[in-house]
Amino acid sequence: MEKLYGNAIVGQSGGPTAAINATLAGVIRGAQTARDCGEMETLYGMFNGIEGFLREDFCDLLTVFDEEQKISDLIHTPAAVLGSCRKKLPSDPKDEMYDRIFSLFSKHNIRYFFYIGGNDSMDTVAKLSRASAERDYEICLVGVPKTIDNDLDGTDHTPGFGSAAKYIATTVEEIIRDCSVYTVPAVTVVEVMGRDAGWLTAASALPSLVFGEGPDLVYVPERVFDVDAFLSDVKAALARHPNVVVTVSEGVRNAAGEYVGSLGQSGTTDVFGHKYLAGTGKVLEQLVREHIGCKVRAIELSLPQRCAGHLASATDLAESVRVGQGAVQTALEGGTGCVVTILRNDGAEYGITIGHSDVNAVANRVRTLPETFVNEAGNGVTEECLRYLLPLIQGEDTPRYVDGLPYQFKLR
Amino acid sequence: MEKLYGNAIVGQSGGPTAAINATLAGVIRGAQTARDCGEMETLYGMFNGIEGFLREDFCDLLTVFDEEQKISDLIHTPAAVLGSCRKKLPSDPKDEMYDRIFSLFSKHNIRYFFYIGGNDSMDTVAKLSRASAERDYEICLVGVPKTIDNDLDGTDHTPGFGSAAKYIATTVEEIIRDCSVYTVPAVTVVEVMGRDAGWLTAASALPSLVFGEGPDLVYVPERVFDVDAFLSDVKAALARHPNVVVTVSEGVRNAAGEYVGSLGQSGTTDVFGHKYLAGTGKVLEQLVREHIGCKVRAIELSLPQRCAGHLASATDLAESVRVGQGAVQTALEGGTGCVVTILRNDGAEYGITIGHSDVNAVANRVRTLPETFVNEAGNGVTEECLRYLLPLIQGEDTPRYVDGLPYQFKLR
Repeated sequence: MEKLYGNAIVGQSGGPTAAINATLAGVIRGAQTARDCGEMETLYGMFNGIEGFLREDFCDLLTVFDEEQKISDLIHTPAAVLGSCRKKLPSDPKDEMYDRIFSLFSKHNIRYFFYIGGNDSMDTVAKLSRASAERDYEICLVGVPKTIDNDLDGTDHTPGFGSAAKYIATTVEEIIRDCSVYTVPAVTVVEVMGRDAGWLTAASALPSLVFGEGPDLVYVPERVFDVDAFLSDVKAALARHPNVVVTVSEGVRNAAGEYVGSLGQSGTTDVFGHKYLAGTGKVLEQLVREHIGCKVRAIELSLPQRCAGHLASATDLAESVRVGQGAVQTALEGGTGCVVTILRNDGAEYGITIGHSDVNAVANRVRTLPETFVNEAGNGVTEECLRYLLPLIQGEDTPRYVDGLPYQFKLR
Repeated sequence: MEKLYGNAIVGQSGGPTAAINATLAGVIRGAQTARDCGEMETLYGMFNGIEGFLREDFCDLLTVFDEEQKISDLIHTPAAVLGSCRKKLPSDPKDEMYDRIFSLFSKHNIRYFFYIGGNDSMDTVAKLSRASAERDYEICLVGVPKTIDNDLDGTDHTPGFGSAAKYIATTVEEIIRDCSVYTVPAVTVVEVMGRDAGWLTAASALPSLVFGEGPDLVYVPERVFDVDAFLSDVKAALARHPNVVVTVSEGVRNAAGEYVGSLGQSGTTDVFGHKYLAGTGKVLEQLVREHIGCKVRAIELSLPQRCAGHLASATDLAESVRVGQGAVQTALEGGTGCVVTILRNDGAEYGITIGHSDVNAVANRVRTLPETFVNEAGNGVTEECLRYLLPLIQGEDTPRYVDGLPYQFKLR
């Protein structure tokens, strides 16, 4: 294929992470180099993903990011500076929405398209790719992975996961310390994000590997959640020491395949007579209160686990930048319909190589914890799992602080 | 009074904070100096406060802390390394429990007693002080303040508050960033600790002062919470921009004096038929869902806001150490029945002086936000309030990290 020359555009999609802006920074750095080498005109940033693109709502990122300090601030700012969307594109590659998209590509001479996101965003790239095959317009379409969930197929791990894992492990370590001060038997249930995969919840056990003290019990969606087994696990833990800490994925399901968090709904109405979704942690709290009767408290880590830029993993941020740069490199080499991947190098010392694979092999698949990462009883993770996770949370790379608070870069 | 010579003992009581161990470190440093100057034998640490003391469960802290690294690690470890208790001593100073306590003082030649804690702990010091007046045993009894709630009377602020305030302000800033990525109207309610005083919730507005962007609405217990006013506030905020963030103290009450959080109880039963305490944030979430109907989510900052040692305020940690040293100094000078206080220096530049006052003037009183710290509408805090708070969150003093996680000092 002859080399394309024109503009590039980048968007962010899906839920925020602490590292999605670091990936954007990598794309910007890659584009700066490409422009300086005469391989690219400029890089646009679309606001609110493909939705904003359809409204022609974008800006020239190479003009905005004219000094290194701004890029450094961007790297350390959580969430998505370009905004996000959750739009699902039509399945039919001949749909007129694609006519609109490709006419805009042509109008702005866009030859490189980068989309940073999770599973749904890879679906967008795959669909654009199929629509592209139907049309006579040359463009390189590259997916750039991010998701705190780490559930994307074809990559060793995803940008954003390491920072969320570091936040969760640290916060659970601090909660364990907090709970240790009293002698009265008490159970603390920490609910962690993860509908289908237990990667984040597994990370809560990292203090066990590093300091020999972690949550007593860890429940992930990869195993059926059995109420009786849970209660007997908790009783056994209380017999060992008074301060029991449990971590649980929001997405654990019972043998019937029902979300445990949804069990709180049946019969539960709030002050307005509405069904009230208690949440997985709250349901476990009620189970302990009802059947064991000791002091019990549920804590939902909620949004902070995905946007805690102040506690980002240095490894994660650095890799996220590399992934963004790798996307530009891949596109310049003519790669299209593909997604950038992280390959873990062989050998004892941790290291990665940036690669890429067919986006169709990645989109709409969920990568769950391997069988050997969960213990036999289904109430904890294995050392093999923790050794896989540990390199991803290494290093502290904090934002700059202004008057005691982290500085955040805002685009508008 | 002739100078006493003998041992000192220190305990920690009440809820954990990120700085209570820093105060303990200050007491240890003060005692080391006193021992080296021949003014004190050694310093014991009682486990689980006065409860542990009654069981003679204590250790020699000057033997344990034989190197500066351990003291530094202690400063950066959240919660209470000696453990805590919530025991309330009898009102009658002639109660036999005091006979037991004073016989133990005598048995171990304890001449200095330091009790680090909040309101209840000051009550303990006040009662021991009255019991002391009835007995022929010379001892200096000194209260050492800590509470994230900042609601202790007679002191400009309390050790532990600045770190909690920094965590809350940072986390709310990050939540605002997270919420900013979507264009769909959404309300996020962040519930902050504080039963009777709004200091912590007020701190959530610090990003407004520093960066001009903070929570849209702030509700504190110092003002009556009116449901209609709340809903009209939220609607007005939604008319300005789609991502509304509200912070609220857990302890806000309606005009009838009922906790808003308790309103979630009436009619609400869980899957087991139990009354379910929804929490203040959840009640506000339901109000928005019912009466406004947009996307809404409640986040409870829960325990992490009081034990996030990884994001401690350097100012808070340094002052907490000084308060601990001040306690030893006060006792060596013969002070008893008193509590160490922090006085803010006059002048534009922030600075403090350590003082002390009668523990009876402090115990069992609650210091709430001054009238001028809350705006007229009762849905925000004033710049005067934020200028009072800002110096307390200055500086980052992080723990040392081992394999990506904060190192925590453990005594046993």
